[in-house]
Amino acid sequence: MFEGVNASDGYGIGVAQVAVAPDLSFTPTKPEDPEAEKARYNEALAKFIDQTNKQIERMKQSVGEEAAAIMGAHIEFAEDEGIKDMVNGSIDSGMCAEQAVSEAYDMYFNMFSNMDDELFRERAADVADVKTGLLADLLGKQVVDLSSLPENSIVVVEELTPSMTADIDKENVAGIVTETGGRTSHSAIIARALEIPAVLSVADATKNIKSGEMVIVDGTLGKVINNPEDDVLENYRAKAKSYAEEKAALEAYRGKETVTGDGEKVLLVANIGNPDDANVAAEHDAEGVGLFRSEFLFMDAKELPTEDEQFAAYQKVALRMKDEPVIIRTLDVGGDKEIPYLNLQKEDNPFMGFRAVRYCLNNPEQYKVQLTALLRASAFGDVKIMLPLVTTLDEVRQAKALVEECKKELDERGVAYNKDIEVGTMIETPAASLIADDLAEECDFFSIGTNDLIGYTMCADRGNDRVSYLYTVYQPAVLRSLKRIIETGRAKGIMVGMCGEAAADPLLIPVLLSFGLNEFSVSAPSILRTRKIISEWSKEEADALTEKVMKCKTATEVKVMLQAAQK
Amino acid sequence: MFEGVNASDGYGIGVAQVAVAPDLSFTPTKPEDPEAEKARYNEALAKFIDQTNKQIERMKQSVGEEAAAIMGAHIEFAEDEGIKDMVNGSIDSGMCAEQAVSEAYDMYFNMFSNMDDELFRERAADVADVKTGLLADLLGKQVVDLSSLPENSIVVVEELTPSMTADIDKENVAGIVTETGGRTSHSAIIARALEIPAVLSVADATKNIKSGEMVIVDGTLGKVINNPEDDVLENYRAKAKSYAEEKAALEAYRGKETVTGDGEKVLLVANIGNPDDANVAAEHDAEGVGLFRSEFLFMDAKELPTEDEQFAAYQKVALRMKDEPVIIRTLDVGGDKEIPYLNLQKEDNPFMGFRAVRYCLNNPEQYKVQLTALLRASAFGDVKIMLPLVTTLDEVRQAKALVEECKKELDERGVAYNKDIEVGTMIETPAASLIADDLAEECDFFSIGTNDLIGYTMCADRGNDRVSYLYTVYQPAVLRSLKRIIETGRAKGIMVGMCGEAAADPLLIPVLLSFGLNEFSVSAPSILRTRKIISEWSKEEADALTEKVMKCKTATEVKVMLQAAQK
Repeated sequence: MFEGVNASDGYGIGVAQVAVAPDLSFTPTKPEDPEAEKARYNEALAKFIDQTNKQIERMKQSVGEEAAAIMGAHIEFAEDEGIKDMVNGSIDSGMCAEQAVSEAYDMYFNMFSNMDDELFRERAADVADVKTGLLADLLGKQVVDLSSLPENSIVVVEELTPSMTADIDKENVAGIVTETGGRTSHSAIIARALEIPAVLSVADATKNIKSGEMVIVDGTLGKVINNPEDDVLENYRAKAKSYAEEKAALEAYRGKETVTGDGEKVLLVANIGNPDDANVAAEHDAEGVGLFRSEFLFMDAKELPTEDEQFAAYQKVALRMKDEPVIIRTLDVGGDKEIPYLNLQKEDNPFMGFRAVRYCLNNPEQYKVQLTALLRASAFGDVKIMLPLVTTLDEVRQAKALVEECKKELDERGVAYNKDIEVGTMIETPAASLIADDLAEECDFFSIGTNDLIGYTMCADRGNDRVSYLYTVYQPAVLRSLKRIIETGRAKGIMVGMCGEAAADPLLIPVLLSFGLNEFSVSAPSILRTRKIISEWSKEEADALTEKVMKCKTATEVKVMLQAAQK
Repeated sequence: MFEGVNASDGYGIGVAQVAVAPDLSFTPTKPEDPEAEKARYNEALAKFIDQTNKQIERMKQSVGEEAAAIMGAHIEFAEDEGIKDMVNGSIDSGMCAEQAVSEAYDMYFNMFSNMDDELFRERAADVADVKTGLLADLLGKQVVDLSSLPENSIVVVEELTPSMTADIDKENVAGIVTETGGRTSHSAIIARALEIPAVLSVADATKNIKSGEMVIVDGTLGKVINNPEDDVLENYRAKAKSYAEEKAALEAYRGKETVTGDGEKVLLVANIGNPDDANVAAEHDAEGVGLFRSEFLFMDAKELPTEDEQFAAYQKVALRMKDEPVIIRTLDVGGDKEIPYLNLQKEDNPFMGFRAVRYCLNNPEQYKVQLTALLRASAFGDVKIMLPLVTTLDEVRQAKALVEECKKELDERGVAYNKDIEVGTMIETPAASLIADDLAEECDFFSIGTNDLIGYTMCADRGNDRVSYLYTVYQPAVLRSLKRIIETGRAKGIMVGMCGEAAADPLLIPVLLSFGLNEFSVSAPSILRTRKIISEWSKEEADALTEKVMKCKTATEVKVMLQAAQK
């Protein structure tokens, strides 16, 4: 039995197909004619782009827009003018195309893989994938081909690149096992979109598992079992069956209102990271967007996006969600998110540094560009503005004053916007929790960011394995903070939502309902399950459980009690 | 007017004496005879040690044990076997003594100056000072001589090294201005011990101020004024007079009980960093030790201190303080405190990492050595054990279980200890604040560490200039947290103290009294002033002010209100 990252839920049972990547090593040469070498590079490039575009078309059919969009990054990294200049320059200075391509893409790879944020680190895989495609073509090698596998195949590969995934025939692949990648890697996203169970980061999987072996992929718990005993196999067959039944049962919640067991309406919305995700959110039956992270606009760019560029992105989401609420968080730079062209200083403790609303309020002219774009988008839907990392009332007042300035300027320009646009705040710091009553007086809504709130409350960096035992929402300290925030906000009559990962935690949902949370913002694939669980709890039942939970003294006691109460 | 760091209170008025350090540059040579070169080095070393020992004797007379102890570091860095080996080895490999000394001390200088903790960074100044002394002797140059200055001198230097300070004739020096150094630098400590007003880190002071100019040093606000107008001069003469009067008035509080305006007894104790500081605390009339940071034992060593070594240090303090309480904090490693031989991993956010009680509980055998040493010391005085950085009840329970194990082992060894030794916890994390009621059930006392509590609550690293505007105890969020901690602890019947810098903040004292704080642990020189301010506030007055303060919405409002109420 091997353990790995549970990247795509479900149980796959089938026969291992171990695919080893081709050897792409080469001996650097010094070609006589740089122009001919550049022509080779350009040919490989054109071929790669052509293949990728075809893959994108196929993926749109098989897995939908979301997953296909991922391959767009490949086109970007192939066509990037900076990389092209670097490759051509290296060839001019005497390198062969293979080496020039290797070095240029390796540089980008290192840049991305050294970033703190997992989301951006995963981009390194895209860069590597483009390099592999170009090198394979230059060297006349074949990349791994997963397009014609037998039925019930379990694909076992070192790394599942997006381009491999694009070729996967969903009907024949029962499970995926890789040696690298995390839950937010593109491979994971695509596996989930294809609804193929997947376990990633299984060390030495291609060595320990042999082609032809019977393999079980437990994508829910992150386990891989080869050559299982008969009883284990039977057990998993039963699990796979009930999993499929449950999944079908969730479909019953599609198109339904989100209500508690005793009929109280709750808003169930999605977290998104870019405008295309709005389609995915809608496909998954979200009732709006509870968190649109605007960072992508800044991180994908080489310089500050203009007002028009920002407006276009926000407007796209507003239009897609029609009259449903769209909460857009203003730039959350710093911490673990780097934007090179902003030239922020390196900090000893970046999570406790110059980030998010702190940076924005210290650069008011730059901030006003974003606020103006958000105001303009509010003419096209129910756009709301949300401030990240607030710790003082001053910050909210300053931001609201800037919004008012922007409104005046739009009036002068004669541009339309929603004069009653709502401005709310993330509650994700101990300070915000402590002054929630004062903040509620000045804010139209709260959205609790549990990911940071847990970290700051417990003084435990989420990315630090040595303290992960402390980083859990079940800590009594965290639950008390959540209770106070939610009760305070509701008592003041404002909406209190949650956009951290805890909002989709099946165990925690009754407790959040008891506290009075009235907006749950979760990842799109969690929408239906969250709706189902919300429907299972009456106020009375949730309150009874919560009363017991709040008397627990340790995180372990809390978790055990919640697990026992799960329906 | 120039601004700098207010390193030593008071007002100095006098004539500038600008002293520029000698040029210690040299051209490296390759001496023929390494043995002769080593002899030169050894001679310089012997002379330096001899001079320093004489300085130490003089300082014991002029400024007392505390300040003299600082020069001990010079002896250590001069006699350090590692450095000596490095210098001799470099000479053997062909370097001249000047270069060998330079390179070895530069290496140590860089090591210390790259540490995160200001306290340890300041050690770099000691290293540089030893290097300067040795180089000056090798090159036949004279270091700056401050031993025979005219009356009413204002010393203006690039850097005030401890050895310069040792020579200062306190009677003739009215003020000190430097271009480098912070509040915790040795120069600052000695200036405070000598009671000479000092402003440090004034950029280009030796260029902008000319010898012979009239200069005012405002060590309270950190201002330096040269060639002042007559009215400014008069104003400062008046300030200096009333400052001297106030200081004399503080002496009236020596030997007195610490009681509030209406006679309620409060414990007023000192923070110390090493056993010798206990003398200083006693000299300043402290009623015990509220925080003995045990890190010095670990940071001054090259390997883990043994049980006996630790016991000797703790026992020394216990004996010195007689029956008065001595709260010793167990090892607070990590965060900004590095102990190289523990080989801790470098972390992205060390303040939110594997530190303090987290490290200790994960290394129970190592922790038990310290706990056993503390128990043994408890046979010699009122020693109490304090846990740093607690965020869960589990941590307190685990630590207490280890204390019980250690007690059993001491019983088996037949060694004496206080069976009723108190175990308390620092309250310095948002989590601890939130679960203060549960912690109070298991702890014998609380001591609030405001320095970390402010940082975690506001998500602002104290060492990060870009967010220092958020880092203040006057933040409503911080005050609310303090109120809850103190009221909760007192309601549960345990002592609640404070050992963070806020405990000595004259503005905040009435608020802390109103909350119910019944132990103030401050730096030794703040004892008498804190006692005076405590005596000025009745419960009724403090409550009235606090009620108004707690209605303030911003840190600025709070500060303005507290300033207006100051007596």
